[in-house]
Amino acid sequence: MAHGIEDVARVAGVSTATVSRALRGIPGVAPSTRDHVLAVAGELGYVASPTAASLATGRTRTVGIISPWVNHWFHAEVIEGAEQALREHGYDALLHTFDMERERPRRRLDPGALRRRVDGVIVVGGPLVADEVRVVEDLGVPVVFVGSGAPGHVVVRLDDARTARVATRHLLDLGHRVVGHVTGAVVDDGPAAPSWWRRAGWSAALADAGLSADPDLEVDGRYDVDGGRASTHVLLDRRPDVTGVFAASDEMAMGVVLAARDRGLRVPDDLSVVGVDGHALGELVGLTTMVQPAVRQGGAAARVLLDRVSGEPLPPRDVVFETELLVRTSTAVPRVGALVGR
Amino acid sequence: MAHGIEDVARVAGVSTATVSRALRGIPGVAPSTRDHVLAVAGELGYVASPTAASLATGRTRTVGIISPWVNHWFHAEVIEGAEQALREHGYDALLHTFDMERERPRRRLDPGALRRRVDGVIVVGGPLVADEVRVVEDLGVPVVFVGSGAPGHVVVRLDDARTARVATRHLLDLGHRVVGHVTGAVVDDGPAAPSWWRRAGWSAALADAGLSADPDLEVDGRYDVDGGRASTHVLLDRRPDVTGVFAASDEMAMGVVLAARDRGLRVPDDLSVVGVDGHALGELVGLTTMVQPAVRQGGAAARVLLDRVSGEPLPPRDVVFETELLVRTSTAVPRVGALVGR
Repeated sequence: MAHGIEDVARVAGVSTATVSRALRGIPGVAPSTRDHVLAVAGELGYVASPTAASLATGRTRTVGIISPWVNHWFHAEVIEGAEQALREHGYDALLHTFDMERERPRRRLDPGALRRRVDGVIVVGGPLVADEVRVVEDLGVPVVFVGSGAPGHVVVRLDDARTARVATRHLLDLGHRVVGHVTGAVVDDGPAAPSWWRRAGWSAALADAGLSADPDLEVDGRYDVDGGRASTHVLLDRRPDVTGVFAASDEMAMGVVLAARDRGLRVPDDLSVVGVDGHALGELVGLTTMVQPAVRQGGAAARVLLDRVSGEPLPPRDVVFETELLVRTSTAVPRVGALVGR
Repeated sequence: MAHGIEDVARVAGVSTATVSRALRGIPGVAPSTRDHVLAVAGELGYVASPTAASLATGRTRTVGIISPWVNHWFHAEVIEGAEQALREHGYDALLHTFDMERERPRRRLDPGALRRRVDGVIVVGGPLVADEVRVVEDLGVPVVFVGSGAPGHVVVRLDDARTARVATRHLLDLGHRVVGHVTGAVVDDGPAAPSWWRRAGWSAALADAGLSADPDLEVDGRYDVDGGRASTHVLLDRRPDVTGVFAASDEMAMGVVLAARDRGLRVPDDLSVVGVDGHALGELVGLTTMVQPAVRQGGAAARVLLDRVSGEPLPPRDVVFETELLVRTSTAVPRVGALVGR
């Protein structure tokens, strides 16, 4: 038999209003009373209707997670970390994905499904264009961005320029002089996007070494394995003198390794490759990479967001995570005569 | 300025009741009227409160997805496929993860957060124990399982026994006689779990070849890369005569490859490895595998579930997807003298 709020009130010896407040976590109920009511409700198997409760309190105890994908390494790890942290705080995650098509014009993000259903939103990856940021803002709840940012918002991110600079300098220090870049950028990505800064860091490292970032040296790997592979073929057709590649993600870097193999090039003898991420499977090909803590970024985003949901009057700020160079076997001194036979 | 339902009614020239019915998709409104109301509401930027609408209709247009992880290959692909299909049908996904600890006793799944919030539930992976299946059933909405099943329910799955049999027979046909198995099973996994059937298929293939599935040949790889690696070390310590391994997932199979390398064994010369999945990164190590269409399984689960949500009186059934052997370079005829030096 299903028990109603009246049953809980009767057994607990309090008013239905007190039961209601206790179950919804509204202030004004003594902690001991609250524990007693929760215990009685638990025994009777009473569960308040979340929709009714949310109409009454305006709180949904749900956080929207907006992400273009769940099956890319970075996005899956961040969502995992965010979801764990939200659960620890008694919040659920409402996942909303959208088509991040690379073609222009693409269909815009439409988060209308989240309206009045969430207390806050975490946007993972992206990057969103300005009018997409606006529709997220129009949801009227606190927002935290992870990876890609937006002006005036909390952004959990890496120091992308430094990350790219350290990775590229690693290749230059080994003696490489023609270093290509596989980016994940699309045409209208601006400075809110990691790809923009990673390209800038690659370019800056080359400039530090007295080299220039020739546009011929840059290709778009679309942030996945297949894109990294296809774009590397374009790069090597265009610039057969490339001996080192900095890829803006490990998945693209693994695509670079596959493309090298397609052409009978050995890694690192004929081509050195460095990525960004610390993907669990990078070890399979001895991938040198800039390791980033993606699960922890998801957790941090959730905690910062919940502070704002609970009404903390906090200014927007960036939460910046460190990356670290992990040298494996995909990078080495360029072989003398590496270009013979290309 | 925010517009209310009265504004929509006034501009559209209908009653607020008609606006309400039209926006919620309740029958009794002529299609032309409905389109007109939707157009006016769209122009005015009016969005009905989904919580209020759901109280009125009992429908949430939301589907719960219960999964132990989002950052394992199979789970991420299935969730991606399910979410795409749900979105196409105007449904949102409420993601609920739980701790699938391997230790006994583990904390049980508690999907109370989904109560009264979802029209149906998709359970990805698992496997759930009997009382966990019961709490999911107690949500009182249609349920579809993907991967692991439960008696009396719709299950989207592979023919796991055949899949394992084909993979193991591939090794036997190459001439291997001592074939280990890296399982993802835990102690109390029953016949609802893919790991149970994959072990059965491995055992049956050995029996077909007049060999027996010695318990020494089976180790638990916990369905991830690290587990596959650690368990392979245990296997090779125990049975240095193993020349072939069937792993129940590609992530574990990649762990087998890493363990072989740790010991200076060459794949496939010293150790042949075959997995299950068709993981995008399997090509990096030339992994031979049984390819399964995971994104399509997620899509199928969503569509079957929505049929049930819309009230189709359908009997429970299994939706079985085919797997296919993809031979790459991780499997070969065992080398004469493969055991020298172990």
